[in-house]
Amino acid sequence: MVQLNEVRAGERTVALPAHTDAGIYFIGTIRTPWTDRRAAPRQGCTDGPPCRIEVAPPWDQGLDGIARFARLEVLYWLHRSRRDLVLQSPRDDGAVRGTFALRSPARPNPIGSAIVELVTVEGPVLVVRGLDCLDGTPLVDLKPDRSLFRPPAREGGA
Amino acid sequence: MVQLNEVRAGERTVALPAHTDAGIYFIGTIRTPWTDRRAAPRQGCTDGPPCRIEVAPPWDQGLDGIARFARLEVLYWLHRSRRDLVLQSPRDDGAVRGTFALRSPARPNPIGSAIVELVTVEGPVLVVRGLDCLDGTPLVDLKPDRSLFRPPAREGGA
Repeated sequence: MVQLNEVRAGERTVALPAHTDAGIYFIGTIRTPWTDRRAAPRQGCTDGPPCRIEVAPPWDQGLDGIARFARLEVLYWLHRSRRDLVLQSPRDDGAVRGTFALRSPARPNPIGSAIVELVTVEGPVLVVRGLDCLDGTPLVDLKPDRSLFRPPAREGGA
Repeated sequence: MVQLNEVRAGERTVALPAHTDAGIYFIGTIRTPWTDRRAAPRQGCTDGPPCRIEVAPPWDQGLDGIARFARLEVLYWLHRSRRDLVLQSPRDDGAVRGTFALRSPARPNPIGSAIVELVTVEGPVLVVRGLDCLDGTPLVDLKPDRSLFRPPAREGGA
């Protein structure tokens, strides 16, 4: 059985710094169908189930105008992940890679990011598709998808 | 002249919580040509100038295998931004929108994200294109671009 958060063969940990450098406010909570990391998908998919992003006061005031965006970028805190792994073997198959060459939840700053489709806005709650995180995951940020802000490609450009 | 970090007409601030909920380690420093926010581009572009991402020890050990990825997602801490705005008027033109309907650097958790092209890896330094942040911006995370991990589109799918 796959164990969570153990250190596997070939993996390498480092001592965490004594102090952090900046602080995060949890601004809401993400509700998904997944309560166990072993059941959650490895990568969100926009044909996945609808999930709820509950934005807490006073931050819900910042949702004004969000309904006009079809896609959002969501940042969240992977609150059950260890932070001290620099080399990882996610599949426990002997293949070891650096943490920054992986999208594993175990990372020095365990911030997950997803691009989701916005289905509907119900007051302070967004219904979206495309998440892969656990139920109860703390919300860190919401932004319009960057591609919606990009200038059109130049004519004759690459 | 555009002032930085003032509160403009129509904007709304909230009282920040007394405590943060989680801590961030700065894992490196981003070097760009921009030392003034008024000169930095509003959105990074992969035909922009090369920038350097300097990953600090011990985290540089996590770069193993990163050179195989053409595109990376970069998270960074927008260290000069105010965090208490929920309604903003970025162009000071009377148009006010919620913070989460904007990619403005002023947000409760001022984490910027960019997709960059990896030009080369020089030990603990990545040379990339596509950033828009200020010189000296603290690095928070690096991940392979999510689209490189997506399964291919299903045949006959949408």
